[in-house]
Amino acid sequence: MDAKTQKAELTRAAIIGAALDVAAADGLESITLQAVADRVGLSKSGVFSRAGSREALQKAVIEEYGRSFLAQVFVPAMQQPKGLPRLNEIVRRWIARTRDVEAFTGCIYIAGAFELDDRSGELRDLLHTEITRWRAALRRTVLQAIEAGHLPAGTPADQLVAEIYSMLMGLLHDVRFLRDPQAPHRTEASWARLVKSYQTA
Amino acid sequence: MDAKTQKAELTRAAIIGAALDVAAADGLESITLQAVADRVGLSKSGVFSRAGSREALQKAVIEEYGRSFLAQVFVPAMQQPKGLPRLNEIVRRWIARTRDVEAFTGCIYIAGAFELDDRSGELRDLLHTEITRWRAALRRTVLQAIEAGHLPAGTPADQLVAEIYSMLMGLLHDVRFLRDPQAPHRTEASWARLVKSYQTA
Repeated sequence: MDAKTQKAELTRAAIIGAALDVAAADGLESITLQAVADRVGLSKSGVFSRAGSREALQKAVIEEYGRSFLAQVFVPAMQQPKGLPRLNEIVRRWIARTRDVEAFTGCIYIAGAFELDDRSGELRDLLHTEITRWRAALRRTVLQAIEAGHLPAGTPADQLVAEIYSMLMGLLHDVRFLRDPQAPHRTEASWARLVKSYQTA
Repeated sequence: MDAKTQKAELTRAAIIGAALDVAAADGLESITLQAVADRVGLSKSGVFSRAGSREALQKAVIEEYGRSFLAQVFVPAMQQPKGLPRLNEIVRRWIARTRDVEAFTGCIYIAGAFELDDRSGELRDLLHTEITRWRAALRRTVLQAIEAGHLPAGTPADQLVAEIYSMLMGLLHDVRFLRDPQAPHRTEASWARLVKSYQTA
C-alpha cells in the first residue's frame, strides 16, 4: 500500500469510527454526513467523497461493528475444541466484551434493533441479516456441541440460541442502563445454570 | 365530575396517548409539544396549557406506560395465591402482553433504557426508578415463592429476577425486530426450564 492509499484508508477508518460514535450515542438514524464531518473536521463533501452517502455510512457502521464483534468474540474461540468448550469461550468473551466495551459504547446490534424495530428499508434489512447470521453461527456451535455429545441429542438449538441472546441482552441492559456491577457475575451464573439444565434434562 | 372537567380529562388523556405514540415510534426524546400538537390537532400552546412542558409530557408517558403495564400484568395476578402460582401468572401475562401489544407498539421501558442509557437527567432517573420498582415487585413475588416453599430456601432472588427480565427482553426483540412467531412458545419453554432448574438445584 503506497503512502497515498494508506492515508486514504486511515481517513476512511476515521470517518467510519466517527459514524460509529454517533450511532452509539444517538442511534443509527442520527448518522448524517454533517454530524460525521463535524467530528472528523472535514467538510460534508469531503466525507461523501471518501465514504459515500449517508446510507453507505450507516451500512458501513453496521458491518464494521459486526467485524469487530466477531474478531473479539467468535474468531478467538475457534481455537477451542468444537462443542461446549468453544461455546463456553464464546459466551465468556461475549460477557467480557459487554462488561468492558458495550457497557460504555452501547451495542449497535441491540440498540439498533430497538431503534429500527418499527421501520422498514435497507438499513433494517442489513441489521436483520447481520443478527440472524450471528445467531446462525451460534446455532452451528450448539449443533457441534450436540454432535460431540456435550449436550443431549434432543437439545433444541434455536431455543438455546435465543436464550443465550436474551441473556446477553439482559446483561447489556443491566450494566449500561442500571449500571449494576453485579450483573456480569449474575450472567456467568445464569450461563452455568442454563447449560446444566440442558445436560440434566 | 362535571362535563367541563370530564372534557378536560379526555383531552389530557388524548394528549398523553399521542405522546405515547410518538415515543413508541421514535423514542422518548422525540416527544415535543409540536409533534404531539400535530397528532391531536391542537396548537402547541393548547398542548402546553393542558399537559405542561415537554419534560412533563415525557414523564407522563413513562408513568402512564407503567400504570397500564401494571394494570394488565401485575394487578390481575394478585388474585392468584402468593408464591409460584402468582409468579407464573405474572410471567404468563407478561409474555401475552409482549406478544399481543408490545410486539406492535414497542416497550417504553426497554426501548427507553436503550435510548437513554448514556444520558443523564430527570428522564433517565424516572425511567430507572420505574424499572427498579417493577423489578422490586418481582423480587417480592419471588421471595413469597421461597417463603411458601415453592422455590428452595437458597434461591437467589436478584438472580432470578434479572433472568426473568432478560427473558422478556429477548422475547420483545424476537417478536418485534426478528418478527419470529415461534418466540412466545420459546419463552414459555424457557420459563418452565428456568423454574425447574431452581427447583431441582
